[in-house]
Amino acid sequence: MILHDFALSSASYRVRIVLNLKGLDYEKRSYALRAGEQRAPDYLAVNPAGLVPALEVNGLRLGQSLAIIEYLDAVYPEPRMIPADPIERARAMEMALTIACDIHPLNNLRILKYLENDLGQDQAAVDTWYRHWVEAGFATLEQLLPDAPYAGGDAPNVVDACLVPQMYNARRFKTDLTPFPRLAAIADHAAAHPAFATAAPPPL
Amino acid sequence: MILHDFALSSASYRVRIVLNLKGLDYEKRSYALRAGEQRAPDYLAVNPAGLVPALEVNGLRLGQSLAIIEYLDAVYPEPRMIPADPIERARAMEMALTIACDIHPLNNLRILKYLENDLGQDQAAVDTWYRHWVEAGFATLEQLLPDAPYAGGDAPNVVDACLVPQMYNARRFKTDLTPFPRLAAIADHAAAHPAFATAAPPPL
Repeated sequence: MILHDFALSSASYRVRIVLNLKGLDYEKRSYALRAGEQRAPDYLAVNPAGLVPALEVNGLRLGQSLAIIEYLDAVYPEPRMIPADPIERARAMEMALTIACDIHPLNNLRILKYLENDLGQDQAAVDTWYRHWVEAGFATLEQLLPDAPYAGGDAPNVVDACLVPQMYNARRFKTDLTPFPRLAAIADHAAAHPAFATAAPPPL
Repeated sequence: MILHDFALSSASYRVRIVLNLKGLDYEKRSYALRAGEQRAPDYLAVNPAGLVPALEVNGLRLGQSLAIIEYLDAVYPEPRMIPADPIERARAMEMALTIACDIHPLNNLRILKYLENDLGQDQAAVDTWYRHWVEAGFATLEQLLPDAPYAGGDAPNVVDACLVPQMYNARRFKTDLTPFPRLAAIADHAAAHPAFATAAPPPL
């Protein structure tokens, strides 16, 4: 199993967490995103999106972190990342997608670079953009998250695997987390779990 | 079943397509997004994200179009929107998420308004932004899509339900579609299906 990866990519970090939680061995290949290594022809043959992560597994080449996590859950079901019950599953996916669709796509490197290089925005404007979208998404999550140690209840699930990387990122951009005490408590609790700690990028 | 909706919202349009394909009756409540009706307290009680769509179904209140579609598929399985086989499922989700994570979040109304109002960008810069991200995502999809009448093969699935709204949107912003012949053929074929046609916003 080969994970095409970048340490600071939130989406890659989600997959590293899930691989660790499931105890799966994998080889890691890293791409310097700022240098554009993910646009090299060799990598585009693996993932035509030119984005990380991509996972090579069982002869498949798969992009999109949530598609990868769902596939791993189907093929290596223990411990489960996405609940089987339709209602619990819908609730978990609603939270995971709040991060994966409403926060992260707006705040990843290619967007911040476009704001800077193509729209001529300065660092302060880029930081304000970043915090605007993360705060909107975190406000939603603060209401959706359960009153439990993990987003997944008594054990971490796909929501924790999305939340911890987004929180690392939010801290990197000095987001004020005081309005989100439940979210912060869950993210910090999950981040201390060995499977999460081993997946983490360098400390801030 | 109540769908909280906005005709031009791509994410709502996805859910309308799936409800039609499954032959489910629903009541539609519309929100004027430009006027901010989705931020009214009554609606925030339904969906704390303050976004459309949200679906009230079987006592649940669910946000996030893909979570809604996955729930509907679990509870009303015919016709299937997301394949059951893990590999086919992963392939379908990779394509659906390419639209739902890599294209649509960058191009929906709240983002275009932020570019205009908060970053002082003119219409030409906003249109260039729009087309930049839709073209990047469509280039990926052009390679991932099957050589088949629908993205789902012989019948439409979740990918078609994401693709047709994104295509409507791309045409609204006058995107050049000549580099994407396979994608355009699939999207046009699916758009002509009665379940898709009935879900469509007003013609461009």
